[in-house]
Amino acid sequence: MSKEVNSESVSLCPLSTAAATEQEMLCIFGTGDLGRSLGQRLFQTGYKVVYGSRRPHSCGPLPPGTQAMSHVAAAQSARLVFVCIHRENYNFLETLAPQLKGKVLVDVSNNLKKNMYPEANAEYLQRLIPGAQVVKGFNTLSAWALQNGPSDANRQVYVCGNSLEAKQAVIEVATKLGFTVLDRGSLTAARELEDFPLQLFPEWRLPLQLATGLTAFFFFYLLIRDVIYSYVVNDKDISFRIMASLANKVFPIVSLIMLSLCYLPGVIAAFLQLYRGTKYKRFPDWLDRWMLCRKQLGLVALALASLHVLYTLIIPIRYYVRYRLAAHTISQIKENKTSPFDTTMAWRTDSYYVIGILGFGLYLLLGITSLPSVSNVLSWREFSFIQSKLGYLTLFFCTFHTYLYGWDEFLQPSSYKWFMLPGYMLSLVVPSVVLVLKLLLLLPCVDSTLTRIRQGWERTDPEQERKKLLLT
Amino acid sequence: MSKEVNSESVSLCPLSTAAATEQEMLCIFGTGDLGRSLGQRLFQTGYKVVYGSRRPHSCGPLPPGTQAMSHVAAAQSARLVFVCIHRENYNFLETLAPQLKGKVLVDVSNNLKKNMYPEANAEYLQRLIPGAQVVKGFNTLSAWALQNGPSDANRQVYVCGNSLEAKQAVIEVATKLGFTVLDRGSLTAARELEDFPLQLFPEWRLPLQLATGLTAFFFFYLLIRDVIYSYVVNDKDISFRIMASLANKVFPIVSLIMLSLCYLPGVIAAFLQLYRGTKYKRFPDWLDRWMLCRKQLGLVALALASLHVLYTLIIPIRYYVRYRLAAHTISQIKENKTSPFDTTMAWRTDSYYVIGILGFGLYLLLGITSLPSVSNVLSWREFSFIQSKLGYLTLFFCTFHTYLYGWDEFLQPSSYKWFMLPGYMLSLVVPSVVLVLKLLLLLPCVDSTLTRIRQGWERTDPEQERKKLLLT
Amino acid sequence: MSKEVNSESVSLCPLSTAAATEQEMLCIFGTGDLGRSLGQRLFQTGYKVVYGSRRPHSCGPLPPGTQAMSHVAAAQSARLVFVCIHRENYNFLETLAPQLKGKVLVDVSNNLKKNMYPEANAEYLQRLIPGAQVVKGFNTLSAWALQNGPSDANRQVYVCGNSLEAKQAVIEVATKLGFTVLDRGSLTAARELEDFPLQLFPEWRLPLQLATGLTAFFFFYLLIRDVIYSYVVNDKDISFRIMASLANKVFPIVSLIMLSLCYLPGVIAAFLQLYRGTKYKRFPDWLDRWMLCRKQLGLVALALASLHVLYTLIIPIRYYVRYRLAAHTISQIKENKTSPFDTTMAWRTDSYYVIGILGFGLYLLLGITSLPSVSNVLSWREFSFIQSKLGYLTLFFCTFHTYLYGWDEFLQPSSYKWFMLPGYMLSLVVPSVVLVLKLLLLLPCVDSTLTRIRQGWERTDPEQERKKLLLT
Repeated sequence: MSKEVNSESVSLCPLSTAAATEQEMLCIFGTGDLGRSLGQRLFQTGYKVVYGSRRPHSCGPLPPGTQAMSHVAAAQSARLVFVCIHRENYNFLETLAPQLKGKVLVDVSNNLKKNMYPEANAEYLQRLIPGAQVVKGFNTLSAWALQNGPSDANRQVYVCGNSLEAKQAVIEVATKLGFTVLDRGSLTAARELEDFPLQLFPEWRLPLQLATGLTAFFFFYLLIRDVIYSYVVNDKDISFRIMASLANKVFPIVSLIMLSLCYLPGVIAAFLQLYRGTKYKRFPDWLDRWMLCRKQLGLVALALASLHVLYTLIIPIRYYVRYRLAAHTISQIKENKTSPFDTTMAWRTDSYYVIGILGFGLYLLLGITSLPSVSNVLSWREFSFIQSKLGYLTLFFCTFHTYLYGWDEFLQPSSYKWFMLPGYMLSLVVPSVVLVLKLLLLLPCVDSTLTRIRQGWERTDPEQERKKLLLT
Repeated sequence: MSKEVNSESVSLCPLSTAAATEQEMLCIFGTGDLGRSLGQRLFQTGYKVVYGSRRPHSCGPLPPGTQAMSHVAAAQSARLVFVCIHRENYNFLETLAPQLKGKVLVDVSNNLKKNMYPEANAEYLQRLIPGAQVVKGFNTLSAWALQNGPSDANRQVYVCGNSLEAKQAVIEVATKLGFTVLDRGSLTAARELEDFPLQLFPEWRLPLQLATGLTAFFFFYLLIRDVIYSYVVNDKDISFRIMASLANKVFPIVSLIMLSLCYLPGVIAAFLQLYRGTKYKRFPDWLDRWMLCRKQLGLVALALASLHVLYTLIIPIRYYVRYRLAAHTISQIKENKTSPFDTTMAWRTDSYYVIGILGFGLYLLLGITSLPSVSNVLSWREFSFIQSKLGYLTLFFCTFHTYLYGWDEFLQPSSYKWFMLPGYMLSLVVPSVVLVLKLLLLLPCVDSTLTRIRQGWERTDPEQERKKLLLT
Repeated sequence: MSKEVNSESVSLCPLSTAAATEQEMLCIFGTGDLGRSLGQRLFQTGYKVVYGSRRPHSCGPLPPGTQAMSHVAAAQSARLVFVCIHRENYNFLETLAPQLKGKVLVDVSNNLKKNMYPEANAEYLQRLIPGAQVVKGFNTLSAWALQNGPSDANRQVYVCGNSLEAKQAVIEVATKLGFTVLDRGSLTAARELEDFPLQLFPEWRLPLQLATGLTAFFFFYLLIRDVIYSYVVNDKDISFRIMASLANKVFPIVSLIMLSLCYLPGVIAAFLQLYRGTKYKRFPDWLDRWMLCRKQLGLVALALASLHVLYTLIIPIRYYVRYRLAAHTISQIKENKTSPFDTTMAWRTDSYYVIGILGFGLYLLLGITSLPSVSNVLSWREFSFIQSKLGYLTLFFCTFHTYLYGWDEFLQPSSYKWFMLPGYMLSLVVPSVVLVLKLLLLLPCVDSTLTRIRQGWERTDPEQERKKLLLT
């Protein structure tokens, strides 16, 4: 089988490219899967590849065009050595220290979990062989990318290392393989690079859990209040409304609450600073964590708002709606009475929709500016203008949209079934609080104090101040 | 109070990280707000930090773990000095020239306004202390980012400086702090970097003003023509239509005009080149400025077109529309006459909507390709294909959509109320002119001349040519 | 005319900038269009520019402020030489080898076609003048950008070259001109850079052709089945339905098929690996090519799905639909019978719409994560989670949406006109096959074997294994 591989792949080796470049020799330690993938790709790009192996004569099928030697011989034949060995087996490399002196060692290893070891693999390798120039790199790529070259999420290679020349050599190999290289600085960044491939949306977890929890709560709340109430009290089965009508109540409610939760921590932080009279005391940990996931909170809220928009736009093509409209027209004719045109109603519904559209438009704008490539070209002043000024405007529009939806029902006791408030009223609590608090912060006297505090001014206790003077 | 800060923050200092790296000593000149934020962050990342201060013993609360010395002592203890002083106070640094010789000085300063000084702060600093290696950097970050690390618009750090090694040292610190660094070349780029944080969408100002102006004009124009006319002549109050119907006329009108204004300058430039017979004469300034804001014009137009789409899609759920449709059905039954199905009408409205959808789809495509990360991966040929070929197609679709909207009303005098044309007719003037001019440019004879001119050919006046020959 | 240019442009030369920087001298070989554009821009940025020309006294109008000399004199006066000559004329440069020794030569040339020459222009230049340090760069920019500075797709400059210092010098000039520079490594990358400006969406060609072909096929298929059948059999002209109704059938059909074609190659590859018992045999070429255009397939499918959404949302405002609904209501009244509310129908249509909305929402999410700037910040694990797990979920939702659309019509012979199946039934074939095959792959026994194979395990033929042992 290995022979078949050989004969098949020889034709794929791009001889012309290989001939055009001077064939530099690269060494790979380890003939495992990773080493073989990397070696095949390097050879196809025009490098000569030699493997360092414990058993160079029985290390299994190697990529065609490459050869295996002992570790000592392989290390001596190349200036750049890729270490494709598990960290557990690094210690034997110590015996190769003389041969590896002055060589560039590329550590491509990853761990199975975070914080498995006190130091990063690459730093451990550097400690074992101080004479070598260790560069961390390529570890953020998938095995597929190592074998087949860059694509999408595998386009960027991060490297770090203490030696500038060693990094330059690795960068050259990486760019020749077609990757875009980002230099992350010295070897102390290795841990960060090794943690990178292990993460699965860490900063999205909290917002998604919150969204799931709120959605579940409001779903069951409205299920009881609307569907089950109607079944028990009016003996009417309107369970078909679960699919679209109920969801179209839950999504905007959760979206509005989550949007307001983006702006609540900023307001709390401002009041905390006002109360403390200084910005030099750290915020409580929960507030810090909250502030760090505001972007994700906002994007999840935007996704729910978009679903709300789509659910709303399909209203007129739903069978239930069409049936009800036709039934209304028919009943009007049968009873031979025409309801007059209600101008207030026209104003009310139009305003309700228009404010919603404008709020959603601003919301989309916030979402677009949080795309990495867009936020990167914004100056900090521009970014904060959009995310703060336009953000509060969005929150205001969306809250106002919900108030208009309620209109005069806030005062009617008929909307309180089983002592349960309508869902949209519950959703208005947090946004209203945030907006009122923000208005308080915008009062000239409060605003100027806050600005001074943020510029580094501190309100000092006269008592303490006196003590300080005595001490100095 | 300063004590409390100390005890609280000590526990936050990541000792483990600090221990893992060799603690390099960094110096910060200035114990103001900026200096303290930066020092705290540097210390938490694992650096030793020393402050240079005029009054090292009474400079107020410093971040825990850092210490203050005299400027001389501080400068001597570190290789890298962050200058967190206002430009106004730079001159005293001249006295430290001997101590700063060979050091890397990082200028993080910003000014309050553009063009306050004839030379950039960093260039001024370099002139004051020629023996030091000045690097401009970090100034585009917000104070929050300096204190808490990178986030969104604060991820990228720009540096520039004349010494490669000095820049490398600063880049290393920045990447250790978690930032992505972009090298902007030599110190002459410092002014650009210092202007960056001061700007607030400079290139969006003109398009937004234009959009506001056009929107206001067409709003009042249509207010008079539709609402007030109806009130005065027919004595009917249809003011509720302001909210949605009127806006849904104004937005597409302004959007179409602004889209055509993206393509008008290109056409004007082509005719100017044809008239002059050369491409080596500069365009008038107004044309240059106009061409530079075409992208922003187009994106504002796209935003208005998106609003138009949303306003159109909510039509069937508006109370007014539902009322009118029901009333129409009821009146048909009462009068017992059924209007026959009008195939032409079906073709007309369907075509009108479909052309609009296709135009909007292409429009969105143009918008997506103008995202920085997308336009960066396009070759210039691809970008110009999309923005020019697809752009004109979009303009054609949108204009055609508007003509279909008008259909045969162009000929009916009833549509001219108070001698005022309907809004959409006004909106068709500029796009039609642009499309006709573009068609002229696509005529083979015109096109070939223009291509030759753009390849550098010049139409020479035979008279002048003769003179030239005599002179040489 | 040349004089007029002079007098006009002198005022444009930014003297102040020029004065602020030390005026470095740059040399440009070639006074053609490209050379002149570049020279003008360099001069305006503050460089002194000298042209090398065969006929320095009669080389036509040069940008104001620059001068022309012989090649020898020009080369000696600058450290950096831009070679703006066609590759065909490179050979004469060999005679300048002594003067060009140690200089940095910037090759900005492009070819008219790919693979015109066996080696890249820059590599040829380096071979001609081995003593010079050749850097490839600027060739990906449009002439407009070279003359006027960076904008959109012309913001990034790629450079490559063997000398680090030479590249640094070129990078400095490029950043001073306002470009962002990406170092692509050694001179072997030159060919890639020279091919870049020639491409016009190479990877989009196949998906777009496929989309066009499928759209055309289904358009004519449905034209015959719906419109012509109705005309021939029922003698009813419903040709107006071509515009919106027919298109709204074709788009989702083609979109669903193309979405499933994104996931088919992955499934085929998995079965191939299972059959072969190894991952070390290359896939057939057609499969490799197919896998490489999956992203483009998906994005074209997303565009068609978006059109389907817009076409669906305008349904209630179409004349035809309004007419039919009103006619239905009127006929109900005339016949004095009211159809009862059908709860199953309400469940069915609502489910149908809701599943469609959720599928489209996930689809959009896939599209957003394939934006370069978004996929770059994802780790490989995150990217594969979204594109694989969420991708199959999207495919499932969209397929289910189509099954719900069909509901019980699959069993009714009335839907088979002229022995032609409805279009949506045809569209279900490929997605159903893909989903069933994927389910097979998720069976625990199959899944574990596949995982082992992908980790490098090989199923060995006992026969072959024995032979191998004998050989070693």
